[in-house]
Amino acid sequence: MPYSAIVTSLPSLIPFLAPEAIERKLGRPMRLRLGANESNFGISPQAAEAMRKAVDRIGWYCDPENFELREELAKKHGVSRDNVVVCAGLDDVLSLCARAFLDPGDFAVNSLGGYPTFNYGVHGAGGKLEFVPYKEDRVDLGGITEAAHRVRAKLAFVANPDNPSGTWHESGPIHELAKNLSETCTLLLDEAYSDFAPSEAIPPIDASNPRIVRLRTFSKAHGLAGARVGYAIAAEETVQNINKIRMHFGVNLIAQAGALASLRDPNFVAGVVEEVARGRAEYESMAATLSLKTLPSATNFVAIDMGCFEDAKNTLDNLQERGVFIRMPGAPPLNRCIRVTVGTAGERKQLAEELALVVKK
Amino acid sequence: MPYSAIVTSLPSLIPFLAPEAIERKLGRPMRLRLGANESNFGISPQAAEAMRKAVDRIGWYCDPENFELREELAKKHGVSRDNVVVCAGLDDVLSLCARAFLDPGDFAVNSLGGYPTFNYGVHGAGGKLEFVPYKEDRVDLGGITEAAHRVRAKLAFVANPDNPSGTWHESGPIHELAKNLSETCTLLLDEAYSDFAPSEAIPPIDASNPRIVRLRTFSKAHGLAGARVGYAIAAEETVQNINKIRMHFGVNLIAQAGALASLRDPNFVAGVVEEVARGRAEYESMAATLSLKTLPSATNFVAIDMGCFEDAKNTLDNLQERGVFIRMPGAPPLNRCIRVTVGTAGERKQLAEELALVVKK
Repeated sequence: MPYSAIVTSLPSLIPFLAPEAIERKLGRPMRLRLGANESNFGISPQAAEAMRKAVDRIGWYCDPENFELREELAKKHGVSRDNVVVCAGLDDVLSLCARAFLDPGDFAVNSLGGYPTFNYGVHGAGGKLEFVPYKEDRVDLGGITEAAHRVRAKLAFVANPDNPSGTWHESGPIHELAKNLSETCTLLLDEAYSDFAPSEAIPPIDASNPRIVRLRTFSKAHGLAGARVGYAIAAEETVQNINKIRMHFGVNLIAQAGALASLRDPNFVAGVVEEVARGRAEYESMAATLSLKTLPSATNFVAIDMGCFEDAKNTLDNLQERGVFIRMPGAPPLNRCIRVTVGTAGERKQLAEELALVVKK
Repeated sequence: MPYSAIVTSLPSLIPFLAPEAIERKLGRPMRLRLGANESNFGISPQAAEAMRKAVDRIGWYCDPENFELREELAKKHGVSRDNVVVCAGLDDVLSLCARAFLDPGDFAVNSLGGYPTFNYGVHGAGGKLEFVPYKEDRVDLGGITEAAHRVRAKLAFVANPDNPSGTWHESGPIHELAKNLSETCTLLLDEAYSDFAPSEAIPPIDASNPRIVRLRTFSKAHGLAGARVGYAIAAEETVQNINKIRMHFGVNLIAQAGALASLRDPNFVAGVVEEVARGRAEYESMAATLSLKTLPSATNFVAIDMGCFEDAKNTLDNLQERGVFIRMPGAPPLNRCIRVTVGTAGERKQLAEELALVVKK
């Protein structure tokens, strides 16, 4: 075999079925795109302006150090530039972390049904996974600690707020978890949805602590999912190690400009966060009208409890058939839910109508 | 140590010093940017239009299958969509190929002083490198074959046309090389500069041959370096294996739109290629005026022979001091040269003036 042992051992799976793939299968476009927790609230006008202008410079490679962006991020988070590494999306950071921390055969811990692209990165690094079921629809922090010790994990992954449940823990228990892990186990704290979360859910950032890597993205509240900009805040040594394997010219130049401009326009993100909170409340009412419960959410999506896997799957399929793209969690106990992104007011109204039709049927 | 054996073993090196880093060091902007073989001829107006429009959709993730772009590329190259994999730049493809073909400790072969980001990808996969010196300023194909057999290499890397020399081989010898490699050694044929090359240098594409992976980019003739779009044309099995580890949502949505539009505007690229040929001839005359020789080039840059390493290095340093960014090859025998990108007519004139000043001093 000419191929490496790792790729030879891996199955040909993809972490997510994209709406475009569904559209090609159905032969028609989706009418409502509320499945990938993208932001349908647009982007900062300043970011849009900066990106359109950057088209004129697209003949140039980006600044491989992401210097200005890291400087701005360091200021925002009260850390040094050397504590920040910018990559082509959070998925890229996750994959690099897997390669920076795991030797082939090493274990990482994730929740059962937790963010699958972390698992994808672990497998790509030749690592193994230990899964911990959700507990009362939240990440089981005690279970994660226990499993990490049991399998001598090098990485423990926790999304807080969580995806796909939307639930969250306060910073105390998160901190406790990091403290209780062994010295050779690093906590990857995925805070992609942190902009939408109450401040109590976000532990203060201490970049001198090498045991926690904080992961952030411009894909959610900033509305820049298609741009591919994510970053880690970590101890200097961790950043240095990621720098040894990351693609130095890997961030799109237009994306760099957009992220920087968006960062400098915090009012825009604040407005999105407000509207998303309103939308979450609407989704709760919508569910209540249909005698359905929702899981508490600190994100830009809401998990609606359909009672059982079959009902959730049927709802998803029927919505899809009607041109409504949503997703659902992949494992029990959460796969009794559907997961819907908070869209614009108009989209929420449309979703309410579609869901009512499907549920009543 | 919490970090993986691979990153722990790697030094903190970066493949390229960026012009932005030089500017920060000097405290002033470069006046002429002719070092990274970027295209200073702009982009297709249709690509620019498509990209500005795509800013409005940046809230969405890209199509992870790069379906339309792969369809268009397959048509262009006379292969199936399943023979094409699109990634975030050619550097990304190189790194993925290293991980798809190399187990830790496996060897890859490159020219001594050849494209360093391939080496970076090999090291990141835990691989080892065997280097073959250039022969008469061209890649030593016989030497590559010999070395590949000697170290039982899994990958042989050849850039044709070559970077940093600009020289090239015709397709016959390239084909011969692929045939002479062992069955477990795959040829990575980096054709980043193929748009600028005579057709005799480009072997016909046979995607059913699993022994050659063809590598292309939108960064050069298409002028989209900052976009990060590169691709491989390869046997289906190779594409499938790369698909097991690539970032599925890794290509920027604006970049997808730009690459697709540029591909559909072949006249634009043809115009760039023509202007670059004119510029190469001008650089030869410029060098001759200064009693300097150039290496033959089938790329968008020209290597100018300064006689020895010291003179090349001094020329580069003096130009840099004057705000002119160029690069030079990193190893003998080519490091007696400076390497200058073919810029616009105005930039070429400026370069000629600057170089004359520096050389006469």
